[in-house]
Amino acid sequence: MERNNRASSEPLDTDTIRLAQGNGGILTKKLINDVFKNTANKELDLLHDAASVTFAGPFLSMTTDSFVVSPYTFPGGNVGALSIYGTVNDLAVVGATPRYISTAFIIEEGFSMTALKEVVHKMHQAAVETNVSIITGDTKVVPKGFGGGVYINTTGVGDSQETPIWDTSLIRPGDHVLVSGSVGDHGACVLLAREDYGLHGQLKSDCASVFPLVNAIRDLEGVRFVRDPTRGGLSVLLHDVATETGFNIELIENNIPVRPEVASVCDILGFDPFVLACEGRVIAIVSPDISSEVLTHWRGIKNGENAQHIGVISKNTDLKGRVSIITPMGGRRFMSELEDEPLPRIC
Amino acid sequence: MERNNRASSEPLDTDTIRLAQGNGGILTKKLINDVFKNTANKELDLLHDAASVTFAGPFLSMTTDSFVVSPYTFPGGNVGALSIYGTVNDLAVVGATPRYISTAFIIEEGFSMTALKEVVHKMHQAAVETNVSIITGDTKVVPKGFGGGVYINTTGVGDSQETPIWDTSLIRPGDHVLVSGSVGDHGACVLLAREDYGLHGQLKSDCASVFPLVNAIRDLEGVRFVRDPTRGGLSVLLHDVATETGFNIELIENNIPVRPEVASVCDILGFDPFVLACEGRVIAIVSPDISSEVLTHWRGIKNGENAQHIGVISKNTDLKGRVSIITPMGGRRFMSELEDEPLPRIC
Repeated sequence: MERNNRASSEPLDTDTIRLAQGNGGILTKKLINDVFKNTANKELDLLHDAASVTFAGPFLSMTTDSFVVSPYTFPGGNVGALSIYGTVNDLAVVGATPRYISTAFIIEEGFSMTALKEVVHKMHQAAVETNVSIITGDTKVVPKGFGGGVYINTTGVGDSQETPIWDTSLIRPGDHVLVSGSVGDHGACVLLAREDYGLHGQLKSDCASVFPLVNAIRDLEGVRFVRDPTRGGLSVLLHDVATETGFNIELIENNIPVRPEVASVCDILGFDPFVLACEGRVIAIVSPDISSEVLTHWRGIKNGENAQHIGVISKNTDLKGRVSIITPMGGRRFMSELEDEPLPRIC
Repeated sequence: MERNNRASSEPLDTDTIRLAQGNGGILTKKLINDVFKNTANKELDLLHDAASVTFAGPFLSMTTDSFVVSPYTFPGGNVGALSIYGTVNDLAVVGATPRYISTAFIIEEGFSMTALKEVVHKMHQAAVETNVSIITGDTKVVPKGFGGGVYINTTGVGDSQETPIWDTSLIRPGDHVLVSGSVGDHGACVLLAREDYGLHGQLKSDCASVFPLVNAIRDLEGVRFVRDPTRGGLSVLLHDVATETGFNIELIENNIPVRPEVASVCDILGFDPFVLACEGRVIAIVSPDISSEVLTHWRGIKNGENAQHIGVISKNTDLKGRVSIITPMGGRRFMSELEDEPLPRIC
């Protein structure tokens, strides 16, 4: 896999990340102090190899994600904000309260220091907003041509009183499928933000914390399953549920909120909005008797205003584990499953 | 930062990682099932966005590292093994017992599936050996030219009864500086393994868990500070200590174990073995009265056979925070500090 050894440019202007800033020595320390130290990270332990904190438990939830989105900045956020929301959301949907986050940067030689600071700035803002502490980190610099600007891994831990709170095994025929808002915004926005397409629009990423949405329904009896439709979008999430339960899912296309801008971008670029990532939405599968209660809760919360009941769980002896869509004309089609499409670096 | 949009090769042979394997759909699931599922990871939770486990506490230690070593495989290990040992070691040196690990892979399109399986195999071996559970993971595929074969982030959590156990603030003049074995092996081995140099030798990486070494002295009164000299080697670690304490460190060059092969490689390539990474060594700074007890403990443990007393902490009213070396001829020089050298992708 080794490429020809390209000479490093190692420019001397101070706005450009240099290889030597990743060697672990004086320049690495300076980079960390200049860029990553921030009053928002009160517990960030720069001196030790690991940070130590008290932990309530009794259960610990842990999640990890590398964010390799291209471009690193887009309307509504950047990779720094996304890396916090993504990890907070993965903890929220298993019923945990997000607490501590680690961040690890892989920066490509030549990346702009100004851009890096902007990424870190939005990361810190998102951490403050979501009430998590960034307690430990790592910084690597890779040579030009061996990275993609900046890649960020965030790993989060949260605590919970019981586990698992929700599971596909709790799902029953007749349950309702709810979504907290429009789907595909993040994916469509990132596709559009790629200069390659030469398109510009009003689209904004939906990236945000779903913790308030999840927390609002955490103690309701009858919530079966909660998940955020990220990579692979609504389609991958619902196909997972159908496969795991053996039940079918019937969606009403008219009820699935898709912004007109997202629909247009998808039409033009040939993508299905149902396979595009959301980064601030949540799907809940709930017993029919609490369905309207959940929607009322959600619609009263920021980012939940457009919550919808989009479908039901059904049992059919002939077909098993299928996701179908009732079209606006009353027809029925199977939801396309994400197979061979290369949709890289959306998140 | 966006490069020209290169066409993806997307070859069809099954030994090559393809972009679509990172889209979050069916092919991603197949990749995860084929490569990452393993009986060694009993608690690996593939179905949820976060894994939930019981956690003893009362203190939680957390550490993160991205491993971007090039080449990804080298005598004595590969990036998979290294990613476990590195994270286990960072937890061990703060006095925690390593428990749970997350692993996040950024794979470059075109990387070999066989190589990936070998990386994961050694990762699982190291996890079993060090008694940690890999409980959650993430897999991203980036286009050719936007990665370096395979990059792995591991984040680890451990528990401890008290925190911090050791700290530079406990260090006193007269304390002894001990090392558990030869320095620079890993760094020299990786430099040599790069085909670029056309050199081949008997060198092996020292990559291993330091938990047994740390655990053996954890309850001794008089241990002030424990750390593993990874990126930046002995030099960065000791300069950190000198700067933080304001004391000087005086090393006896003859006592610092450097393998003859490492010394030769450094001579030929022009590197200082004291700035090269170790991945299985530990430095302890201890009160003089327990110095021989620590060495006896270490020398009775695998990878501690060549433990040495290499220097002392001293106080000097003229000089502060300096690291000096008494040479074999009785002279004195300051240890060189790692500044501007681009030494990327050693770990």
